[in-house]
Amino acid sequence: MSIRVGIVGISGFGGGEALRLIAGHPSFELVYAAGESSAGHRLVDRFPGVPARLAGLVIERWDPATLPQLDVLFASLPTGSSAAALARVPGNVKIVDIGGDHRYAEGWAYGLADIWPDRIAGHGRVANPGCFPAATLTALAPLLAEGLIEPGNIVIDAKTGISGAGRGGDSRFGYAESNENLVPYGLLKHVHMPEIAATIERLSGGSAAGLVFTPHLVPMTRGLLATIYGRGRATTAQCLDAARRFYAGRAFVRVTDAPPQTKWATGSNLAFVSYAADPERNLVMAMGAVDNLGKGAAGQAVQNANLICGLPETMGLEGAPVWP
Amino acid sequence: MSIRVGIVGISGFGGGEALRLIAGHPSFELVYAAGESSAGHRLVDRFPGVPARLAGLVIERWDPATLPQLDVLFASLPTGSSAAALARVPGNVKIVDIGGDHRYAEGWAYGLADIWPDRIAGHGRVANPGCFPAATLTALAPLLAEGLIEPGNIVIDAKTGISGAGRGGDSRFGYAESNENLVPYGLLKHVHMPEIAATIERLSGGSAAGLVFTPHLVPMTRGLLATIYGRGRATTAQCLDAARRFYAGRAFVRVTDAPPQTKWATGSNLAFVSYAADPERNLVMAMGAVDNLGKGAAGQAVQNANLICGLPETMGLEGAPVWP
Amino acid sequence: MSIRVGIVGISGFGGGEALRLIAGHPSFELVYAAGESSAGHRLVDRFPGVPARLAGLVIERWDPATLPQLDVLFASLPTGSSAAALARVPGNVKIVDIGGDHRYAEGWAYGLADIWPDRIAGHGRVANPGCFPAATLTALAPLLAEGLIEPGNIVIDAKTGISGAGRGGDSRFGYAESNENLVPYGLLKHVHMPEIAATIERLSGGSAAGLVFTPHLVPMTRGLLATIYGRGRATTAQCLDAARRFYAGRAFVRVTDAPPQTKWATGSNLAFVSYAADPERNLVMAMGAVDNLGKGAAGQAVQNANLICGLPETMGLEGAPVWP
Amino acid sequence: MSIRVGIVGISGFGGGEALRLIAGHPSFELVYAAGESSAGHRLVDRFPGVPARLAGLVIERWDPATLPQLDVLFASLPTGSSAAALARVPGNVKIVDIGGDHRYAEGWAYGLADIWPDRIAGHGRVANPGCFPAATLTALAPLLAEGLIEPGNIVIDAKTGISGAGRGGDSRFGYAESNENLVPYGLLKHVHMPEIAATIERLSGGSAAGLVFTPHLVPMTRGLLATIYGRGRATTAQCLDAARRFYAGRAFVRVTDAPPQTKWATGSNLAFVSYAADPERNLVMAMGAVDNLGKGAAGQAVQNANLICGLPETMGLEGAPVWP
Repeated sequence: MSIRVGIVGISGFGGGEALRLIAGHPSFELVYAAGESSAGHRLVDRFPGVPARLAGLVIERWDPATLPQLDVLFASLPTGSSAAALARVPGNVKIVDIGGDHRYAEGWAYGLADIWPDRIAGHGRVANPGCFPAATLTALAPLLAEGLIEPGNIVIDAKTGISGAGRGGDSRFGYAESNENLVPYGLLKHVHMPEIAATIERLSGGSAAGLVFTPHLVPMTRGLLATIYGRGRATTAQCLDAARRFYAGRAFVRVTDAPPQTKWATGSNLAFVSYAADPERNLVMAMGAVDNLGKGAAGQAVQNANLICGLPETMGLEGAPVWP
Repeated sequence: MSIRVGIVGISGFGGGEALRLIAGHPSFELVYAAGESSAGHRLVDRFPGVPARLAGLVIERWDPATLPQLDVLFASLPTGSSAAALARVPGNVKIVDIGGDHRYAEGWAYGLADIWPDRIAGHGRVANPGCFPAATLTALAPLLAEGLIEPGNIVIDAKTGISGAGRGGDSRFGYAESNENLVPYGLLKHVHMPEIAATIERLSGGSAAGLVFTPHLVPMTRGLLATIYGRGRATTAQCLDAARRFYAGRAFVRVTDAPPQTKWATGSNLAFVSYAADPERNLVMAMGAVDNLGKGAAGQAVQNANLICGLPETMGLEGAPVWP
Repeated sequence: MSIRVGIVGISGFGGGEALRLIAGHPSFELVYAAGESSAGHRLVDRFPGVPARLAGLVIERWDPATLPQLDVLFASLPTGSSAAALARVPGNVKIVDIGGDHRYAEGWAYGLADIWPDRIAGHGRVANPGCFPAATLTALAPLLAEGLIEPGNIVIDAKTGISGAGRGGDSRFGYAESNENLVPYGLLKHVHMPEIAATIERLSGGSAAGLVFTPHLVPMTRGLLATIYGRGRATTAQCLDAARRFYAGRAFVRVTDAPPQTKWATGSNLAFVSYAADPERNLVMAMGAVDNLGKGAAGQAVQNANLICGLPETMGLEGAPVWP
Repeated sequence: MSIRVGIVGISGFGGGEALRLIAGHPSFELVYAAGESSAGHRLVDRFPGVPARLAGLVIERWDPATLPQLDVLFASLPTGSSAAALARVPGNVKIVDIGGDHRYAEGWAYGLADIWPDRIAGHGRVANPGCFPAATLTALAPLLAEGLIEPGNIVIDAKTGISGAGRGGDSRFGYAESNENLVPYGLLKHVHMPEIAATIERLSGGSAAGLVFTPHLVPMTRGLLATIYGRGRATTAQCLDAARRFYAGRAFVRVTDAPPQTKWATGSNLAFVSYAADPERNLVMAMGAVDNLGKGAAGQAVQNANLICGLPETMGLEGAPVWP
């Protein structure tokens, strides 16, 4: 029997990727889509390649009072607007919130699905991690869990494709200004820092007080890489071994000897992690590469939905990355 | 029961895309992969995101004498080298040749799958159309079939992403020289011209003697657009109607009112076609947009393999395009 | 003695390129800049690399009543808004209008500077050609002048970088949606068609009634290529010879044997033209490649300003293209 | 009187950019060009937009025995091959070596021109800094000089456009594989590390033993950003003030409040630096953005040549950056 799902925020890139994954999911049936700028249009008007059976679905203006009967709602709304928008969704509708408002909020599970699947499985409300946290924490978790890196002074230099800035009309994200440009931003105060710090502390049991996080916009559509610097006395081999143990049997995390490249993950829910260390310099490096719209957004959201619906975790997510 | 398939030419972009599609195909089991520059490596060494069950398959050097038992072989070899390479493949192994050597060759079906599925279904040898012909002929077929365009003086201005130039080490295709560059080439003598001309003649019954075809390299990885100019007295609406009739019930061709964009097709086997006409000027325009590695190569190859194996034509090809 | 110049429309890409060229011009002194979205900011706030001597110039809101004493005004305003904006500029201020409102307008010279320098030299009002016309007409002029192509049924398939769409906030021109996308638009009705037709007629003396013009957006910032198809009985060599004669002694047009590439012109005022013909098929092809912000906008504008100020035509425009 | 200059390594990207800058230099006359893959061709065959007066210069195969009389030779050869290639150049020919072999070599000045112009001015042999060191050290120098950052544990996360990988035919640098990809490499052992460490020590007087340097390839042609993390108790304002003092009166370094973007520098010899600090966390961040072929290679080389020829340092380098 199929599971009835809806998407709110279909106009954005995260919502669009959720649509693609749900359209290919064997157990999910999309019965509802809502979006601000697309309301009144059919799905095919906005997504010309959408499967024929979904082409005629009309996008609605979001109103929780007019929701059809749903099992799961995927929400992909701008940070700051999902808390209010989702407050009146009936309790029997499970929610995966791809937006930022419910991370570490009361009553919401934090959906770092490759690390804490068991904490997610029983929940009706899951807050999907941000794209930067997804890459960063997937790379760091094994080191933090085994004490191979000090939690207190981690430096994260992160780079994301421009779809991470969201859809919408700022000329700074226009092709002409973004192509051939590399832009650091949000120095020392990015909105993802508290989420990363809180999770480092949960994973390590120590304080993340000295955390530094610097995001950069890179001229590519998809892809996110976190290059992480910390302190520890482990060797490269010990770090790789720790990660291989930590992720043994997990479907979506690949531990590689070579430094990971973002294109390895494009269009998939995979995360690639690797490590380099120099014990003599008390240095440990971790790297994590994901598709910011996959593991960093809609891919992880579908994985979380599988978990809360009691489905196999990998259902609808087995597609290999698109290369080149 | 699964169908045993192999790929020769796995190192190239066409072979890589065939791998991705076969890995996600419900009835195909990849049991063999061969490639010049990758021989001796495991699949995972070259495709870090390949599904775990295929990761350890070792890429072999091509030798038809050492083929395992296969039902279907996908060949993606440079034009000029597949005729010799495939000559000694046992007759009971079905072949889909993505390369150029067998198009309109004796004993080979021409695999324009959206147009002539019935001519392909019974064959053990199928020559996949080239990427430019795939986009061009899909757009032209309805007009030629209904006599809405004169076959004798068609001008095709085609644009392809750089993966169409193949993998390999020419600095002209390097990022630094290709980015921010647009390059016309092969003027009046491109290798795809005879294939296009022959198919125009087959579709129309007339001569294609005045055919002009100009390809351009565009700074993008995937995507191919053919903009086609011809003569005729039909209106835009008549052209669109003809195409909607022609492709009624066909899964992979979408007829759109708006001019098609290449990104609509990325990662999929879809073709988008549209038309514009001005009867007063005796002008008919047709446009076709595809992913040059999808409908232009591996997607159509899998569609052809489905046809010759008696499977549903769409099996393993239902994935929606990747956007953005 | 330096010539006092101003720019209105400094916020846009054309205005920004005019700023770059004027900043490097030996005889022009920039004393005034106006722009809607930048008003109140210093030049250095919008152009961090502007020469130090110009850094502090404050961008004003456009008001012809408050113009300082100027010799030349460069106007780069959206088509439709420059006619009104420029109407009250004092008659003793020479104007080069990069925008579209004054092309073939009464009292304005049409600034196709490589072809008609003498018609421009005496004028105080010059309408700069559009970017598509600049590339197209530069390629066609020698053939039309010598009767090597029929003026009545020319097909222009043109491709432009995305800066040609102007600055501003449409998500269709955002990086995520534009990258890896190729978009035909404005079919059979682009705003540049009348300008191209009028100039073809002026150059040939014949009618351009059958003109077809199709622009495409290509994922690159700068660069514009026109691929042109027409009828004639000349050979390739005859076309090349005609162009070499036509442009003998002209500084900015390069006639090449190989098909021209857009990157050859990046950052310069150069136009590259080439030809291919097949007399047996009654076919003549012409190609023109320019930087849409160079020869297609600000480069040609500075050339026109040189002409109307009695300066050497090449002054400030000798810089070689940026490659790669 | 003009200064006679030559270029060896004209086939590469650094050599090509040197050509562009020399062609526009008021006092340099290019009389000699040598290159492996281009030997025998005229300059215009390889650089279609080269100024007409240089078009016919024939590229020679490098042989120091057949050098014409030269005042300055620019060498842009692969690291490892310039030491031998330049050993037999006559002593009266001044050399600026853009390649890596002579950095901190006996008898060669280290050409960090914005910082040590006086050490360069008297020399006949100058080793141009590497592209990564140029951006990194320009950002760090003011902090090191004033003791605002500890020299012993600096972490440099650097990102470069793909022209930094050099020209040549590796498919890893091909458009199809590089576009939409972000690649860390050379972990803990990049060839530029010793040069950076040595200069940090020279600037600070302390040990750089804990230096960490991680380069990344970014999908853009030009541009290089170094994001640098270190320890210190200064405030952001103190760092900015130190840099403004340090570079007061220097033409090519711009200290900005906002984090620098690579596109600000494209095509120019400018370096943009900025800072962010959090004294409570003992954190100092420095950022430097350059064009890797400008300040990172040929721009700085021309600046060095100006210094050793006794010309104004900025001659031929005043061009504003190309934007967008």
